[in-house]
Amino acid sequence: MKTLSSADADALDRELFSTCNFDVIQLMELAGFAVAMATLKQHKDDLSHGILIICGPGNNGGDGMVAARHLSLFGVTDITLYVPKQPKTDLYLRLIDQARQFGVTVTDDTSVLDRSYGVCMDAVFGFNFDPKGGIRAPYDSIIARMRDEAAVCYSKLVSIDVPSGWEVDVPADEQRKDVIRPNTLISLTAPKICADKFDGNHWVGGRFVPPAIRDKYGVHIDFGDDIVVKQ
Amino acid sequence: MKTLSSADADALDRELFSTCNFDVIQLMELAGFAVAMATLKQHKDDLSHGILIICGPGNNGGDGMVAARHLSLFGVTDITLYVPKQPKTDLYLRLIDQARQFGVTVTDDTSVLDRSYGVCMDAVFGFNFDPKGGIRAPYDSIIARMRDEAAVCYSKLVSIDVPSGWEVDVPADEQRKDVIRPNTLISLTAPKICADKFDGNHWVGGRFVPPAIRDKYGVHIDFGDDIVVKQ
Repeated sequence: MKTLSSADADALDRELFSTCNFDVIQLMELAGFAVAMATLKQHKDDLSHGILIICGPGNNGGDGMVAARHLSLFGVTDITLYVPKQPKTDLYLRLIDQARQFGVTVTDDTSVLDRSYGVCMDAVFGFNFDPKGGIRAPYDSIIARMRDEAAVCYSKLVSIDVPSGWEVDVPADEQRKDVIRPNTLISLTAPKICADKFDGNHWVGGRFVPPAIRDKYGVHIDFGDDIVVKQ
Repeated sequence: MKTLSSADADALDRELFSTCNFDVIQLMELAGFAVAMATLKQHKDDLSHGILIICGPGNNGGDGMVAARHLSLFGVTDITLYVPKQPKTDLYLRLIDQARQFGVTVTDDTSVLDRSYGVCMDAVFGFNFDPKGGIRAPYDSIIARMRDEAAVCYSKLVSIDVPSGWEVDVPADEQRKDVIRPNTLISLTAPKICADKFDGNHWVGGRFVPPAIRDKYGVHIDFGDDIVVKQ
């Protein structure tokens, strides 16, 4: 399995917006849709017991907001979007507003972390976050709760792109011992190095990379006729 | 089958952008993706003989531009986007640029209409176009060519949302005799009145309507776990 370093993932991402002229809202829609689809395929039964989606301050959180809406369209009725910090950009405010109109509960109330859910989705940090500098509040304690409550409050833990708090450029089996252990990882665009040796369910979504960039980064995912594929 | 009048379709569409706070590029991405998916499901073999996508000046043309890119991602290698009039908006210019990067041929050369294709996609006019006022050049002759070359140059004709030149508020079996006769119609959001009594393959895509608007317009499509559904 070809994996990308955080530097290459960042460079590839920049090319999608510069060379390819994509708008972030376009790719986020496709990414969030893919996340919803992979979660549905992997955890359909768990989803009937509700899903808590924990959103960070950047694009990973935005993917979670889009996924919430698409999960509602797939018939999931109990969806909570936990957004601990009020977003400042118009994009995230719109995505939250849209999710609300699909019956998604949006809250900044920490107490939702205590509730029982079939699935907890980790949409806190993506490939741009480096935990070596320390994790700032409130995300430090939220990630600790995800780790401690997994298999207690939450039947299944699903991470978008990178498990939050993991070092992106370190294989899964060499991560620190005190990190979260998601049941499912949904890599977007292409797996990062931390997906190597990942022992849970691994899906790849994000079908939007043009041939020249696929070739340049050696990223060739065979999606067949679908938008997500299990590795 | 519940169908919408052009007035209701227009009102519903406006609510998606006002009440729901959607961006046109978001919904166009989902719509174009659905069009690509339905075309793939219905005409996979025909697509191996190439597809000509004829784009009009508005959103229907934009849906075709997005569909071209997603068809490329689904492995279709011979895709021509015929855009007879240079678009003036940044959105369409970006969608064309993106399609090009996926190997799609983009042209304003009328001679592509003479070539043989497995599929010709009619992305000329949508539900906002009323043919009673006459069809202006160059679209009048292009639509006539689509009609005359169907089953000659093009094995299959696929229309997005509304067959171009049809009266939106008239059932299929009461349209004028000289209109195009698509093999496949892909309704977006919900079928319009002209989809009633349509005797070809009828798909519905565009899974993005929130519950309140679904209820208001009586639009309840059961997509199951997919993004398109055959009627």
